[in-house]
Amino acid sequence: MTKEKSGVGPVVAQRAHFAAPLKLRSGGVVPAYDLVFETYGTLNAAKSNAILVCHALSGNHHVAGHYADDPGSLGWWDNIIGPGRPLDTDRFFVVGVNNLGGCHGSTGPSSINPATGKPWGADFPLMAVIDWVQAQARLADRLGIDAWAAVIGGSLGGMQALRWTITYPERIRHALVIAAAPKLTAENIAFNEVARQAILTDPEFHGGHFYEHGVKPVRGLRLARMLGHITYLSDDQMAEKFGRRLRHGKFSYDYDVEFEVESYLRYQGDKFAGYFDANTYLLMTKALDYFDPAREDDGDLTATLARTKAGFLVVSFTTDWRFSPARSKEIVHALLANGRDVSYAEIDLNSGHDSFLMADPQYHAIIDAYLKNVTL
Amino acid sequence: MTKEKSGVGPVVAQRAHFAAPLKLRSGGVVPAYDLVFETYGTLNAAKSNAILVCHALSGNHHVAGHYADDPGSLGWWDNIIGPGRPLDTDRFFVVGVNNLGGCHGSTGPSSINPATGKPWGADFPLMAVIDWVQAQARLADRLGIDAWAAVIGGSLGGMQALRWTITYPERIRHALVIAAAPKLTAENIAFNEVARQAILTDPEFHGGHFYEHGVKPVRGLRLARMLGHITYLSDDQMAEKFGRRLRHGKFSYDYDVEFEVESYLRYQGDKFAGYFDANTYLLMTKALDYFDPAREDDGDLTATLARTKAGFLVVSFTTDWRFSPARSKEIVHALLANGRDVSYAEIDLNSGHDSFLMADPQYHAIIDAYLKNVTL
Repeated sequence: MTKEKSGVGPVVAQRAHFAAPLKLRSGGVVPAYDLVFETYGTLNAAKSNAILVCHALSGNHHVAGHYADDPGSLGWWDNIIGPGRPLDTDRFFVVGVNNLGGCHGSTGPSSINPATGKPWGADFPLMAVIDWVQAQARLADRLGIDAWAAVIGGSLGGMQALRWTITYPERIRHALVIAAAPKLTAENIAFNEVARQAILTDPEFHGGHFYEHGVKPVRGLRLARMLGHITYLSDDQMAEKFGRRLRHGKFSYDYDVEFEVESYLRYQGDKFAGYFDANTYLLMTKALDYFDPAREDDGDLTATLARTKAGFLVVSFTTDWRFSPARSKEIVHALLANGRDVSYAEIDLNSGHDSFLMADPQYHAIIDAYLKNVTL
Repeated sequence: MTKEKSGVGPVVAQRAHFAAPLKLRSGGVVPAYDLVFETYGTLNAAKSNAILVCHALSGNHHVAGHYADDPGSLGWWDNIIGPGRPLDTDRFFVVGVNNLGGCHGSTGPSSINPATGKPWGADFPLMAVIDWVQAQARLADRLGIDAWAAVIGGSLGGMQALRWTITYPERIRHALVIAAAPKLTAENIAFNEVARQAILTDPEFHGGHFYEHGVKPVRGLRLARMLGHITYLSDDQMAEKFGRRLRHGKFSYDYDVEFEVESYLRYQGDKFAGYFDANTYLLMTKALDYFDPAREDDGDLTATLARTKAGFLVVSFTTDWRFSPARSKEIVHALLANGRDVSYAEIDLNSGHDSFLMADPQYHAIIDAYLKNVTL
């Protein structure tokens, strides 16, 4: 993948306003909201060729293509979308949306709260995956899409695809659930909690109302992202990529960068803290923690997935220790117990959880083959 | 193990002053220093029954027994030390020492720097494991111990035991290397780095000179400890111990404790931040990062361990993902390649890295059997 050549070429973000209040799982309400989205390809006359791409923790609506004024601004999953690519825009109409609560244009904590005239900040209600799916359903209504040909996502995006099949079984024909899990483990929650505490205890967080103080909790956000990156990569990949390689060939015996891996983490943390909103980060980690659709059926995932009607492709990655293949198999087994049409692939890639973003030929061939069989 | 009944009964910490400068691996020098230590059992006339217990990141010299004025003040490894316990004080003279750079009485960053009359703070030189071993060797001299019957330790403590066999092969007859590794991986270093950054970027760290400001970087230290705890436990153990159990039976949709695992981590973090020194924590993590004795032999651990003469017991734990059994086996294989006398045990315990502290009968029986065969 070269940085200059996007699959779909120049793209433009669009905005949709929803004036009706959205009732949330938490009991809270978002009185009105905007969703920012992009589309690639052409919606057919039957409106039967639409694919929704759901984003993960730090993603957004800019999934593919580039902005005309910035050739380097490739979408985060550009490698899989475009003419002749697995999400083939010669055939499909692909939609990317920034989730409610996000920080890339859709209404979220950094938006103005109409009740106060100030940024929502910590007063923005916490989101559950089902809330996003409901907001996305309204966007589908707006686009005239009765049913998605497919909903696809990795990680938290995969959880949204799964939630679609449960909440709107008539509105999704196929779900591609990648590097996901039916719920977080205690260890998953623990990592999220450390990241949250880094942000919440940053003196510049100001109880979530830092906007009004003209500061940002960059230290906390930086730590959260550094920690996140450890869980996105695999031990093997870190060993290969960095090992114990030293920045200056020898130990300096101080707290500056000594090992290359330290440099990588600091760079990733700094970069992220520069553009991402701390309240959105917190909210996304909570949505992950809350996700547990089987909770509605006393923990019986098979009962929950009995409500689904879609076909499924479930994909996991051998070196993913955040959501290991075993977690994907829980979904597969519950679907099989319901006699659902499910394909499962475990891909041997060494990029850990982040493998879902990689342009691996075997991985892409599986997505490609699955989608080629989707009738329009 | 009841909290009231220590194996060795009431104990008293001792202090030894070393007036000669200690030259460090970093090139730095500690001009003079104190070591605080405890002993359990009686040194025999031949001075051949001494066992040194080395502590890990947050440990200290108070390994066994309790203080007369506080029956609850059990040593951190009391379960393994005492009459009839694996480190049998009817037979052995057991020594625990707080490492140089520590914060429990031995000279460290919170001690007064004689050159300035103020706490050393960030000016205290960084330590390598070999520096601790050299400081411990001077303590052995002071106690009249030419050679330890054994040196034992878990995690960073095990690395010290291993270092003893390389640096002072004539002064150690047996090494018990538990839950250790011959060096840290990139992932291990990455976790340490996030913990360090949490402390270093805490506004109350003041470049390591927080003592003079009357504050402590408690937020950073708390985060470091929370993160540490995730890596000490196993995924399985966290699932068993906490799972997705909620504090209040339902989601509260805010940033207070929702899941029990969050409560556990916050409690552990708060407790630790209340008593541990931030500069010591930083220094300990760096000693871990630097540890790589094979570096002296271009990475050839077999060449490095050719210098050893001790007998070895190497122990690992199935669920330890910080220093997995594979890491212990690297040590075992390098020792076997040198024809050394080495026993290896992999214990199936679900407590992850922390397993080395557990009073598991099978684990303790292995230590017990090994030490019973040590001649005095």
